[in-house]
Amino acid sequence: MGLPSAEIITIGDELLYGQIVDTNSQWISQHLGLSGFRVVRRTSVGDVREDILAALAAAEQRAELILITGGLGPTADDLTRPVLAEYMGCGLSLHEETLENIRRLFEKRGFALSERNRLQAMLPESCLPITNHWGTAAGMWFERGSKVYVALPGVPYEMKNLMEHSLLPRLKQHFKTQALYHRTLKTSGIGESWLADEIRDWEEQLPPHIKLAYLPHLGMVDLRLTASGEALEPLQQEVQQQIDLLYPRIKKWVYGFDTDTLASSLGELLKEKGYTLATAESCTGGFVSYTLTSVPGSSAYFLGSVVAYENAIKELELGVQADTLRQYGAVSEATVTEMAQGVRQRMGADIGLASSGIAGPGGGTAEKPVGLVWIAVATPTGSRSRKLQLSQDRDLNIRLSTAHLLHLLRQTLTEND
Amino acid sequence: MGLPSAEIITIGDELLYGQIVDTNSQWISQHLGLSGFRVVRRTSVGDVREDILAALAAAEQRAELILITGGLGPTADDLTRPVLAEYMGCGLSLHEETLENIRRLFEKRGFALSERNRLQAMLPESCLPITNHWGTAAGMWFERGSKVYVALPGVPYEMKNLMEHSLLPRLKQHFKTQALYHRTLKTSGIGESWLADEIRDWEEQLPPHIKLAYLPHLGMVDLRLTASGEALEPLQQEVQQQIDLLYPRIKKWVYGFDTDTLASSLGELLKEKGYTLATAESCTGGFVSYTLTSVPGSSAYFLGSVVAYENAIKELELGVQADTLRQYGAVSEATVTEMAQGVRQRMGADIGLASSGIAGPGGGTAEKPVGLVWIAVATPTGSRSRKLQLSQDRDLNIRLSTAHLLHLLRQTLTEND
Repeated sequence: MGLPSAEIITIGDELLYGQIVDTNSQWISQHLGLSGFRVVRRTSVGDVREDILAALAAAEQRAELILITGGLGPTADDLTRPVLAEYMGCGLSLHEETLENIRRLFEKRGFALSERNRLQAMLPESCLPITNHWGTAAGMWFERGSKVYVALPGVPYEMKNLMEHSLLPRLKQHFKTQALYHRTLKTSGIGESWLADEIRDWEEQLPPHIKLAYLPHLGMVDLRLTASGEALEPLQQEVQQQIDLLYPRIKKWVYGFDTDTLASSLGELLKEKGYTLATAESCTGGFVSYTLTSVPGSSAYFLGSVVAYENAIKELELGVQADTLRQYGAVSEATVTEMAQGVRQRMGADIGLASSGIAGPGGGTAEKPVGLVWIAVATPTGSRSRKLQLSQDRDLNIRLSTAHLLHLLRQTLTEND
Repeated sequence: MGLPSAEIITIGDELLYGQIVDTNSQWISQHLGLSGFRVVRRTSVGDVREDILAALAAAEQRAELILITGGLGPTADDLTRPVLAEYMGCGLSLHEETLENIRRLFEKRGFALSERNRLQAMLPESCLPITNHWGTAAGMWFERGSKVYVALPGVPYEMKNLMEHSLLPRLKQHFKTQALYHRTLKTSGIGESWLADEIRDWEEQLPPHIKLAYLPHLGMVDLRLTASGEALEPLQQEVQQQIDLLYPRIKKWVYGFDTDTLASSLGELLKEKGYTLATAESCTGGFVSYTLTSVPGSSAYFLGSVVAYENAIKELELGVQADTLRQYGAVSEATVTEMAQGVRQRMGADIGLASSGIAGPGGGTAEKPVGLVWIAVATPTGSRSRKLQLSQDRDLNIRLSTAHLLHLLRQTLTEND
């Protein structure tokens, strides 16, 4: 049994000009996928009648569900309502309930209703209007032959609410969708091709209805398993069995599952072990601290950080020895280790993290080139450090150093498990 | 004279599954637009041979330039190289220079070359390979009839570098694109509609070949002027004349031009005045410090930062009075002011910045709800603070607090100019 196919069309000149990132397409893709649809294509076109008509006609050839967002606003460049009416071969007429909804929203906000806003209640006659409780642009549902067309406003907050509360339940019912189940294993500390080599025989024995995808990002690789079938429960069991085979083989790189981040997984580990954490940063400039504190509830284990750009601050605030700085320099194993130990002691934390490096683009020498970074983790029983040779790109170096440092912390916390 | 048309095709199941946001399409749209192309459509397809072939054939009907990203990795689901070879009717063969580049990158990173990675040097025979100095996947340039096809890796950092350094110059030359001239005024501290009201009459007198775009982002608004015509030089003069009219009217909100960021402009101001800077952060968790140090050369004026998540650290490292914390709480004008003054004194800086707030999603009370943030700037002559009431979203609150704090610093540094 195949999954019903869906195509997403996003409409708006601002997309083609690159003025905004199309987050709607990502959200809709994800939620259609999780609801048992197979998204076969996403298309973005401008506010141009011919281009919208052509995109609709092409989508109709490929997909059973055509989901459109954008172009439902009250201004002259919003063409979706009249163009959909043209495409469906019907007229526009006033939909009283939609007008009432618009009037109610304007009253609530204390604004007077303009003639322009009344236009938003002129809907194609062949559509089933879907009331939008979160804004003035109604959703629309069309059926033609075996195809379903849905049009939604482009405002993300309105689109998401309409999808979650009205359209996804209706779509699942209409298409009697197949069950789909996803799990993602999140890894750090191993590259995509090494990981693929490591698990090749496991990957080759996967049944055809379970697909594997490698999703690399900034020094990490996500492994996503997607199973499809008649019912959800057996899929969940099958995927779990596959994960039980896979996990022990790559355990040392797996920091979490699904929505976990490396920072959130570390937070769970730290809470479990009852450890507190402090960081001392030079080249990462606060990004390690920001990444750790971006996790809600991180105040339970994160005490604080010292960003020590100047050597004097490294001495004063972190207790790095003047001798160490003089003899080895700021970017050295000796300095980064004293930084990690220093912040641990100063802040009374169980664990101290530190970074010191040359983020670039300037400041490199033959001996210490741009991209050279030292990282360290200090614990009550000692400390460990790593030397990294990264790129020429300042921001990339900051982000990669942070990923490596968090991975080193994870190694330290889990090696005796 | 029409602009040459372009279509962007992004390839990857992860896009259709909605696992990642397609930021590449936005970046490429923007940069093709700025280089004199008219993007007519964006299409995303999965890692499916037939779908990639169909998307290529359809794009060829519509656009003069077809720009493809993604699917160039070393794993089995990366199909772009073989499918492009099939579409162009040629074979794949080993490209020595690309293999050499891969080998060099692996050596630099201290890794052994795997068989899998050698695959990335098997390129379609009819392409002109574009060396990728930033990663292992080569870019490719094809010409067929009057059409140009370009394929780029999907890793944003690699794609952007290849575009900026190799492809955009080559594309502009190949298509002899119309002269386009852009200037952007960057503002902070004023909302889009207020800014529009402020400059309405200036905007109305702009000649038709000079377009104005409002680009709002995170509490700031960029104003981009785009002039098009036959030759560059007269366009530059005309745009400069328009800026000479506009700038004096909105001077107090303009922090810079073009590639300036608020942090880089502040860096220039601080260097000019010979001031040094230190920050004390609570709710922003290091993001203010990261933003300031993301500017190359910031070590000239940035001394360091203390991230004080725990109250004990606020006392110990920043000298906030225990009484102040007890009487007013950590999220208060009194505490944030002592934090700014404290870090200034402790680090021997001319200026201290501080933030303290409830980033959320937890930790709010009726009196101090989620999104309440206090920010402060301390100077040798005194200090000033602002109360912000932001959103329910943790990361948005961190970023908006940072933007407001940097704007407050800019106001402080420029008010007597």
